[in-house]
Amino acid sequence: MIIILKNNPDKDQLENLEYWLSGMGIKVHPTVGTGKTILGLVGDTSRLDIDLISALDIVEDVKRVQEPFKNANRKFHPEDTVIDIGGVRIGGGTLTIIAGPCSVESEEQVVGIAKSVKESGATILRGGAFKPRSSPYSFQGLGIEGIRILLAAKEATGLPVVSEIMDASQLPLFADIDILQVGARNMQNFSLLKALGKQDKPVLLKRGLSSTYEEWLMSAEYVLAGGNDKVILCERGIRTFETYTRNTLDVSCVPVLRQMTHLPVIIDPSHACGRYQWVPALANAGIAAGADGVLIEVHNDPQHAKCDGPQSLTPDRFAQAVPELKAIHDIVRGGKHN
Amino acid sequence: MIIILKNNPDKDQLENLEYWLSGMGIKVHPTVGTGKTILGLVGDTSRLDIDLISALDIVEDVKRVQEPFKNANRKFHPEDTVIDIGGVRIGGGTLTIIAGPCSVESEEQVVGIAKSVKESGATILRGGAFKPRSSPYSFQGLGIEGIRILLAAKEATGLPVVSEIMDASQLPLFADIDILQVGARNMQNFSLLKALGKQDKPVLLKRGLSSTYEEWLMSAEYVLAGGNDKVILCERGIRTFETYTRNTLDVSCVPVLRQMTHLPVIIDPSHACGRYQWVPALANAGIAAGADGVLIEVHNDPQHAKCDGPQSLTPDRFAQAVPELKAIHDIVRGGKHN
Amino acid sequence: MIIILKNNPDKDQLENLEYWLSGMGIKVHPTVGTGKTILGLVGDTSRLDIDLISALDIVEDVKRVQEPFKNANRKFHPEDTVIDIGGVRIGGGTLTIIAGPCSVESEEQVVGIAKSVKESGATILRGGAFKPRSSPYSFQGLGIEGIRILLAAKEATGLPVVSEIMDASQLPLFADIDILQVGARNMQNFSLLKALGKQDKPVLLKRGLSSTYEEWLMSAEYVLAGGNDKVILCERGIRTFETYTRNTLDVSCVPVLRQMTHLPVIIDPSHACGRYQWVPALANAGIAAGADGVLIEVHNDPQHAKCDGPQSLTPDRFAQAVPELKAIHDIVRGGKHN
Amino acid sequence: MIIILKNNPDKDQLENLEYWLSGMGIKVHPTVGTGKTILGLVGDTSRLDIDLISALDIVEDVKRVQEPFKNANRKFHPEDTVIDIGGVRIGGGTLTIIAGPCSVESEEQVVGIAKSVKESGATILRGGAFKPRSSPYSFQGLGIEGIRILLAAKEATGLPVVSEIMDASQLPLFADIDILQVGARNMQNFSLLKALGKQDKPVLLKRGLSSTYEEWLMSAEYVLAGGNDKVILCERGIRTFETYTRNTLDVSCVPVLRQMTHLPVIIDPSHACGRYQWVPALANAGIAAGADGVLIEVHNDPQHAKCDGPQSLTPDRFAQAVPELKAIHDIVRGGKHN
Repeated sequence: MIIILKNNPDKDQLENLEYWLSGMGIKVHPTVGTGKTILGLVGDTSRLDIDLISALDIVEDVKRVQEPFKNANRKFHPEDTVIDIGGVRIGGGTLTIIAGPCSVESEEQVVGIAKSVKESGATILRGGAFKPRSSPYSFQGLGIEGIRILLAAKEATGLPVVSEIMDASQLPLFADIDILQVGARNMQNFSLLKALGKQDKPVLLKRGLSSTYEEWLMSAEYVLAGGNDKVILCERGIRTFETYTRNTLDVSCVPVLRQMTHLPVIIDPSHACGRYQWVPALANAGIAAGADGVLIEVHNDPQHAKCDGPQSLTPDRFAQAVPELKAIHDIVRGGKHN
Repeated sequence: MIIILKNNPDKDQLENLEYWLSGMGIKVHPTVGTGKTILGLVGDTSRLDIDLISALDIVEDVKRVQEPFKNANRKFHPEDTVIDIGGVRIGGGTLTIIAGPCSVESEEQVVGIAKSVKESGATILRGGAFKPRSSPYSFQGLGIEGIRILLAAKEATGLPVVSEIMDASQLPLFADIDILQVGARNMQNFSLLKALGKQDKPVLLKRGLSSTYEEWLMSAEYVLAGGNDKVILCERGIRTFETYTRNTLDVSCVPVLRQMTHLPVIIDPSHACGRYQWVPALANAGIAAGADGVLIEVHNDPQHAKCDGPQSLTPDRFAQAVPELKAIHDIVRGGKHN
Repeated sequence: MIIILKNNPDKDQLENLEYWLSGMGIKVHPTVGTGKTILGLVGDTSRLDIDLISALDIVEDVKRVQEPFKNANRKFHPEDTVIDIGGVRIGGGTLTIIAGPCSVESEEQVVGIAKSVKESGATILRGGAFKPRSSPYSFQGLGIEGIRILLAAKEATGLPVVSEIMDASQLPLFADIDILQVGARNMQNFSLLKALGKQDKPVLLKRGLSSTYEEWLMSAEYVLAGGNDKVILCERGIRTFETYTRNTLDVSCVPVLRQMTHLPVIIDPSHACGRYQWVPALANAGIAAGADGVLIEVHNDPQHAKCDGPQSLTPDRFAQAVPELKAIHDIVRGGKHN
Repeated sequence: MIIILKNNPDKDQLENLEYWLSGMGIKVHPTVGTGKTILGLVGDTSRLDIDLISALDIVEDVKRVQEPFKNANRKFHPEDTVIDIGGVRIGGGTLTIIAGPCSVESEEQVVGIAKSVKESGATILRGGAFKPRSSPYSFQGLGIEGIRILLAAKEATGLPVVSEIMDASQLPLFADIDILQVGARNMQNFSLLKALGKQDKPVLLKRGLSSTYEEWLMSAEYVLAGGNDKVILCERGIRTFETYTRNTLDVSCVPVLRQMTHLPVIIDPSHACGRYQWVPALANAGIAAGADGVLIEVHNDPQHAKCDGPQSLTPDRFAQAVPELKAIHDIVRGGKHN
């Protein structure tokens, strides 16, 4: 950490600061410039509260040199995290394909889609039972009945299931769900993240609509710091000024996050673009950038889907898209498939 | 609502759509252009799910003509909402000044600040007991003990108290707090909003970091739709590309929201800019734009504040800032003070 | 175009509006709803000035149904535009690889890089002679001498050359340059765009840092409307809140623009991310999304480059990246190579 | 400037770097931490090219400590810049009110508006002769005839005139215009900025739609570095995700820029919000934040304006708005009026 002092800092306050830092085991190396004095701090600064220091009268600015996340940091954990769900692996170079409807509507629908996507190459089933909607007047999901239907589809196909949890109080309902999804709007719901850190199911953490990589990793850090080391990062598009697409898929996150962290990174092209026509191209892009997998919405009857119909592939279109994904994955990651 | 059809839409599908709409009491007026056919819908379209219609094969685009919020809409509720908390009014042209420390640290601190800001003109005390922090390693607030201290300050000064609630499970702890604050990162925590709609304390709803006015009002609508009509909107700065300020205060929201909604709108310049030096200028700007009040961080010892020290005014600086606020309020709103 | 009227519009003003529109050959179909009256306009509305109509007292809002660009619109020009530069094709499914240094530094440097990238598979050479820099104190390019060096490299290798033009007054200097690049910061320099529409060299139009697809196509429309139909669109990263990358590559533009327009779309991953380590992954992503080509910075000695060194590949790293690009292009576009 | 080295940097390269820096008169103070080595640079680093250093293999990151602008920096020029145009002052605590139509349409119109706004308190006339429009099919301004009309209005009222210049080649046409406006889309048209630095008329520099304060000041620096010290900064709204307003007025720029620079800062609420209803509130907010003035669009017949009608005040509404501006200016700046 670097502290940039104001011109002519008060000597007593400066001594106090150095004394306080030394009490925390941190050594201070000053550089006296013509314009500014800079303090270089040596020691474990990861738990220093940057706000506390910024507030001092003698301080003009504070800059971090080290990342504020530890458990998620590849520097301290160079090996890829690989999550194994009954033999289905996520991370470490294996291609993970998650597919299913945005929201669960009926058992017949979900079981039918699950069988179809499994045959086309999906390794995990997704489906929403509790739906966060920006309007209180929109369909809010089937709730508990939705969970029951997802488990019936799991039973029928053997596919592990991922579904969104909105509140820690729902944890008992998710006892048999394999992966707990945290939605983009809850990425900084710290109460929920803390609760998920204290249980041991894998967490699929969607990126917030305008969150930075560091904020996203700090949210992962909440789960990891609680003792649960199974976090999957899912990019689902960020908010930009573009209106033709619903959001803007940030594929750059793939190579950058693979350098910053050991956690698996997957891509959700369906929510990112909002139109099924563009989903296969964006799924290809995500895998070509090195992602560990994709999460794709598939609906047997998108025209009558209760939400997000326009972005869902039909099972047929999904079946056509998978071979290109596998071929590109073979080129860029050497091709481990589940 | 307007539906724009693709060229040469399938006749059967078009008839199905018109039949379905008529079943919901909605009449369809087609306009056949050279390029496009447009359907104008007449009737109560506020509860039509725009996604359902967008998903149809024959539909190119759907545009809303009416706002999707009803309870928060000034068109259906032309009078300003005025919230009365034991004689302290918010909304309707009265100047509301909320002040206090970002986080509660000790009883001595909070009672001292409360007495001081009351004397300078504050009408409501703020203070955080539970703190949402982006890092799990930062100070998370005093919790229950923080609530106790706030209530002691209320007792000592008679000022009503606002404090942030992070989770519906905390509601019993807030039994004696006067106003429940929902933080920016929880603006779309729909579980929390639904819970707050079913109780009757006023809710101070901060705007999300990159939320639009409509999304913000839809979150207010969650509370209103639950039966609680006491929502205060608080602008606290949006995320932009600027790095000199922490966030960017959007003062435009004041005249726009006063036209869109009857709910009170207040401004938080402290979180918006992140530096105490700029807080008085921005508070002035908010009031000059017509806001119903301000929420300002005040700390007796900003250099040792546990969070957000750099943005806190000292009690002295706060005392100097209040008269300008009142003078500007007199000019633009005719000057009703609590 | 759809006009949404305010409640109870003045009858005289409404008649005036309808009369004025009919004078422009546009028929008006009103839809009288319970809340709103909507006018659907039938006829050629592409040249109606939306601002003129929005300004009327009786108008609440105006929404376009048709895109405001005509020459760039795929609807009126369904075939891909293919630009041929002495046998090197851009567009229409051919993979275009443009490579070279950010700024021209010496003849030895540029000729050396040109020979190397040609051998590795590049089909066009890039290099900057005039450099737009945000600081007046940064290196501004070699100017005329830079142009001379680029032409020497063209002579030595036979590669066509693209270079950035900053001002219409520079046109004579670019007489032998093959493609004129318009930089991101000049995307809405309309004086320059008009001048480029009146000459016939191809224009490589970079997207502005925070421009929408429609604004970008309207800038292309300036060139096309002037009579020059050879425009290449180049995505080079948009400004977002992320700071780890310089900008954020928007690969979604590829499938969306290929639907909206017939113009070729290429991707510049170097400027987008700002770090050479991530360039190959992003180039892969762009091609996997269906782009017509890439523009990649290559420098023989990035550590001593006069600008943008951190984002340049060495010739060796470039040589390693090309085969993956070709293999992915074969999968997604069936593989036409220059 | 601070250089953060990678772990275990190559010794030879490090020596080379230190040798190179010392040749530029810069001393290097290393701080060897457990995780990182940091080099603090002492000397005049304002002209070091940050890109050159970032590109080195041994360097992880470079952070500036000093601002990259000198001539615009208040630290080196503590007194406010005051620009005097025939007795009308801009800057230094005087309230400047610029008003007039967005685009010049006829002599009668402009002279009429000029007389009216002068009577209401405006001190400078604005009007566009050359209009940058995002569509080539929109009205592009009257051009030379527009300049003639503006000069006729200047003659008739004595008001100095500001008008937008789009290209250095237009300079002769602006010989009698008092202030040259650079539009938001040209903020980084460096060819134009350099040309404006070499002449001596004041330049009104609008902020780019998504530019940072630092980029804006670097553009001002282009003019100042050329020898012209008369630059006026004009905030006209930034691009955000909000769609109810055209752009978002960033009033925070006022207190921040007044700290960073000695140049005058004015506010354009008309372009910022795009609707006349909100203009007076935002003008108030700008003055309350401490701005040196406002630039307001006034049109005698907004419903028939050739551009931007919806955001123009009528002369009557303008006359009503001025007294509040003056009263607020009296409170916050002590009230020097032209």
